[in-house]
Amino acid sequence: MYKSPSNNNELDHLISLLSKIPGLGPRSARRAALQLIKKKDVLMRPLANALASVAENVHPCSICGNLDVENPCHICESSKRDRSLICVIEDVADLWALERAGSFRGLYHVIGGTLSALDGVGPDDLNISGLVERASDPELKEVIIATNATVDGQTTAHYITEQLKQFEINITRLAHGVPIGGELDYLDDGTLITALNSRRPF
Amino acid sequence: MYKSPSNNNELDHLISLLSKIPGLGPRSARRAALQLIKKKDVLMRPLANALASVAENVHPCSICGNLDVENPCHICESSKRDRSLICVIEDVADLWALERAGSFRGLYHVIGGTLSALDGVGPDDLNISGLVERASDPELKEVIIATNATVDGQTTAHYITEQLKQFEINITRLAHGVPIGGELDYLDDGTLITALNSRRPF
Repeated sequence: MYKSPSNNNELDHLISLLSKIPGLGPRSARRAALQLIKKKDVLMRPLANALASVAENVHPCSICGNLDVENPCHICESSKRDRSLICVIEDVADLWALERAGSFRGLYHVIGGTLSALDGVGPDDLNISGLVERASDPELKEVIIATNATVDGQTTAHYITEQLKQFEINITRLAHGVPIGGELDYLDDGTLITALNSRRPF
Repeated sequence: MYKSPSNNNELDHLISLLSKIPGLGPRSARRAALQLIKKKDVLMRPLANALASVAENVHPCSICGNLDVENPCHICESSKRDRSLICVIEDVADLWALERAGSFRGLYHVIGGTLSALDGVGPDDLNISGLVERASDPELKEVIIATNATVDGQTTAHYITEQLKQFEINITRLAHGVPIGGELDYLDDGTLITALNSRRPF
């Protein structure tokens, strides 16, 4: 049986909510709660305000699915973005990863997950119809499918490719191979075989 | 240079606050923020409210240092507690650990850390004077010093013992030895030596 650590409903409620944050378990949630109380003014109250304000103001972009206070989001609205190029990703975290890398200047489309027979996720559960709609834009020339290199991610990539075949656009995917800085000795066989088969002239 | 993940001030502010919670780093804070946004109504808003409410209502008990919505706390006020016994601990987390164990029925005294020459923590930075004050209560018979079994914890225990010598009370400490369920092979030498030296008749 889980025993109330503090015998105090408000604190217990906070700890049980904190323990639901991915990355925190019951023990680290207790530690976090105590730290937060020690830093009431510099951390706890600002965090409460930030959570309430993000819950209120941040919404998914109705075009691409990115999270922003504006709708459409700042990327969809930006005049500096290449509108002939859409990169399809699973999740907003992937969008952030590509933005941190800083080399992609096109638009995005967040589908919100992968097809998964096991988890019962079908095409209608993902934002693929929105992508097909955007694909009919005559300005669009290329769709880069950047779903994760997992089985589900690649299944989803194939499904999306099928859906986009009707349009006259290039459909590409990210290159697979040896990660920069990676040592061959530590790579899995699948990546090594792919890297060999996709070898490029020096 | 740290790159803004979302290019969105509100979200970035939330992520930077989340990353200050012990147990979360920048990457897990980003993941946590996305999960929170996905669970706005069941997790994010309740968490914001719980944080604000605990920040407002939970305070250290003016007698023992425990955290509670009431002052004095429910332990100090309880008629079921043995008032002849005070257990001295470093932190509220230690109080919770003892309460979870459920066997101690006395009162507590949280000193709020340990003496530490390295970190510049002196006796005046800890709530030791409050303990000395409570020790003059004629009802009190025993003080159990349950600071951690670290160098700083034990230094602090010795200092507290010195301060309490003037009173006619028993001063005890937790037993050291083999943890229940522990295997000798995995124990450190210090614990094994202590367990041997403190051996008890069968």
